[in-house]
Amino acid sequence: MLRAVCSVCGKERTRFSSEPNCECGGVLVPKIDFRYREGPYPVNYPYLERVVSLGEQNTPLLDAGSAKFKLDYFMPTFSYKDRGSKALISSLASMLPKGLEINEDSSGNAGASISAYGTSSGFKVNIFVPENTKPGKINQIKAYGADIHLVKGSRKDVADAAATHPGYYASHVLNPEFRDGMRQLSYEIFRQLDHRSPDRVFVPVSAGTLLLGMVAGFEHLLESGEIDFVPEIVGVQTDAVNPVCSAVNGVTYDKNNSKYSSADALASKEPILMEIMVGKLKKYGKCVTVNEDDIILARSELALKGMYVEYSSATVWAAYKKKHYGGENILVLTGNGLKTP
Amino acid sequence: MLRAVCSVCGKERTRFSSEPNCECGGVLVPKIDFRYREGPYPVNYPYLERVVSLGEQNTPLLDAGSAKFKLDYFMPTFSYKDRGSKALISSLASMLPKGLEINEDSSGNAGASISAYGTSSGFKVNIFVPENTKPGKINQIKAYGADIHLVKGSRKDVADAAATHPGYYASHVLNPEFRDGMRQLSYEIFRQLDHRSPDRVFVPVSAGTLLLGMVAGFEHLLESGEIDFVPEIVGVQTDAVNPVCSAVNGVTYDKNNSKYSSADALASKEPILMEIMVGKLKKYGKCVTVNEDDIILARSELALKGMYVEYSSATVWAAYKKKHYGGENILVLTGNGLKTP
Repeated sequence: MLRAVCSVCGKERTRFSSEPNCECGGVLVPKIDFRYREGPYPVNYPYLERVVSLGEQNTPLLDAGSAKFKLDYFMPTFSYKDRGSKALISSLASMLPKGLEINEDSSGNAGASISAYGTSSGFKVNIFVPENTKPGKINQIKAYGADIHLVKGSRKDVADAAATHPGYYASHVLNPEFRDGMRQLSYEIFRQLDHRSPDRVFVPVSAGTLLLGMVAGFEHLLESGEIDFVPEIVGVQTDAVNPVCSAVNGVTYDKNNSKYSSADALASKEPILMEIMVGKLKKYGKCVTVNEDDIILARSELALKGMYVEYSSATVWAAYKKKHYGGENILVLTGNGLKTP
Repeated sequence: MLRAVCSVCGKERTRFSSEPNCECGGVLVPKIDFRYREGPYPVNYPYLERVVSLGEQNTPLLDAGSAKFKLDYFMPTFSYKDRGSKALISSLASMLPKGLEINEDSSGNAGASISAYGTSSGFKVNIFVPENTKPGKINQIKAYGADIHLVKGSRKDVADAAATHPGYYASHVLNPEFRDGMRQLSYEIFRQLDHRSPDRVFVPVSAGTLLLGMVAGFEHLLESGEIDFVPEIVGVQTDAVNPVCSAVNGVTYDKNNSKYSSADALASKEPILMEIMVGKLKKYGKCVTVNEDDIILARSELALKGMYVEYSSATVWAAYKKKHYGGENILVLTGNGLKTP
C-alpha cells in the first residue's frame, strides 16, 4: 500500500478503506520515502507488486522550434489519465476482490481511463459524468465496459453521486495512488532531456492530479539528488473556470459566472485539492488564464504543426504564447483531439 | 531517391516525376539493395537525407494472453499510415519545392496523415475523399490544414480526381516511398520479439500498402540473415469488399455486391496493387474474410480488453478467432477507435 498522510490532520493512512479520503475529511498526500532509481515500472512504485498494462510506454517529446511538446495522449485510452489509472487500478487489483463495483466521477477522460483499466482488471465499473459530456467520450467509456450514469448539476454533484454509490469510490482525485502515477511524467521528461530539468513546464489545471503528481515527481528527483532545481511550473486555467489561478493571484473567483469554455475537461470549480495546488504553484511558479478565442486559435495552430489535441489541452499553447518565455519550455498536451471534434 | 522498379516493364525509375507510377502504367516496387542495420530512422532508409517527424516512435506490442497486439494507432495522426507518410513526405520535401500543391485520395486515415505531414512540411495539401467519409475523419484532415474535396462515385473515381488535379499526385498507394515506410513495422516486431520472427501476422488488407510494406520488411530481414523465415501472413478482408481474398482463394468477386461494412477503411474494390498482393499472400500465407456481425463483436471484445479501435482494425481479431491458430500470433491494430464512434 502506498504510504500517504492526511493534508489536514497529518495522520498516516493505516489501511485501504472503502473511502479514499482521510477519516477526518482531509485528502491523502503520497509520502515518497525512497530514492529515485532508473528503470521501468514498477521501479519507483515499490508499493505495487503487480502492474496492469494496456500498452502504455514513454510518450514522445516533440521539439517544435520554440517549445517542446510532451504528447501525453500517446496512451491506451488517448489521454494522460492512463498514468494515474495504471497506478490506481494496479493497487486496487491487489487489495480488492474481483467483481467489486468501483465508482468514479469524471468529465470524460478519467472515466474512459478508469473504465478501461478497471474493467479489464475484473471490476464492475460505474462512471458518473456531467450530463453535457460529449457523446464521443461517453461512447468510449461504455465501449470499455463501464456503466454510464449521467448526472445533472455541478461537477461536485457528479462527484457526490459517485461517492455515495455502493462499492468502492475509485475517485481519481482522492485516491493518492492516481496522483502518484503522474510522477512518471516528470521522470520521462527528465530522462528525455538527458537527466536534467527543463526551465519551465506548462500544464492545464483542473482537479489537480496532473499538477500535483508532476510536482511530486520533480520534487522526488530533487530530493534524490538527480536534478538541481524543480522547473518553474505554469498552471493554466480558462476564463470560465479558474478557482486556482484566482487564489494564486489573489483575486476573487465567481463560480457562478456564465462564461462558456470549449475546454470541457477543465471543469473543476471547487477542487478539493485546491489548497495544496495553490501552495505548490506559489512555491514553484504561477497560474495564468486564457480566454475562449485564445483556446480556439491555439488548438488550430497546434493542428497545423501536426498535433491534434483537445481544446482543454490547447490551453497550454495559448498561455505560452502570451509573453516571451526564455529558456527551455515543455508544454504538456494531455488529450487526443478526436475526443472533441 | 528510393530505387524502385516497375512491376510490369521491369524498368528502374530514373527520376522523381510528377506522376508516381511508371511511364508504362505499371506500379513501382521498392528495391532494397542494402543490409538491415539496427538503429533509429533514417537507418534502413538510406535514400532519406532529412527526416520529418511529428513525434512517431515504436508502437506498443501488447501481450493479451492468446495473442499479441501491435497497437499501431499510437501514432501522431492515430493510424499506422503515419509510417508511410513519414517516408513519403520526407522524400518529397527534399525533392519538391515548398508551397507546391500535393494531392492525395483517401478513405480517411491516409488523408489525415498526408495532411499533417504535408502541411507541416510546407506543402499545400488537397485531400480527395469519398462523399460518405465520416465527419470526424474530415474534421481531422481539415484541422491539419488540407483542403477537402468530397467526390461522388467509386473509390476509383476519388483516386482519378486526385490524380488529375494540378500539382503532384502524392498517392499513398502509387508512391513506392509510402509502402517503403511500412518496413519499419516489421523491424519493430522483430526487435520487440528479441530478434526473431513471430509464427504469424494478421493484417487488414485494402489498397495493399500495409501488407506489401510489411512483407518487404520481413523479406529484408530474411535476406539480411536476421531471421530464419518470413512469418505466415494472414490478410483479412470483409464480406463486402474482398477482391484480394477472392483472387487468392480462386473465387469470383462481385464488386457490385451491395453488402455494407462498418470497416470503412477497407474500401478498395479494384486495388491497383492487386496482383502483387495476391502473389505475396499465396507465397507466405492466406486471405480470410469476416462478416459484419464478426466485426461488430470483435470491436466490442477488443475494447473490453482495453483496445479501442476502428471497425476496420477489429477485422484481424474477428479473423483470428475463426479457428485455432497455434504458435505466436501478432495482430496489427491499425486505427484509433475515436475515428469511428
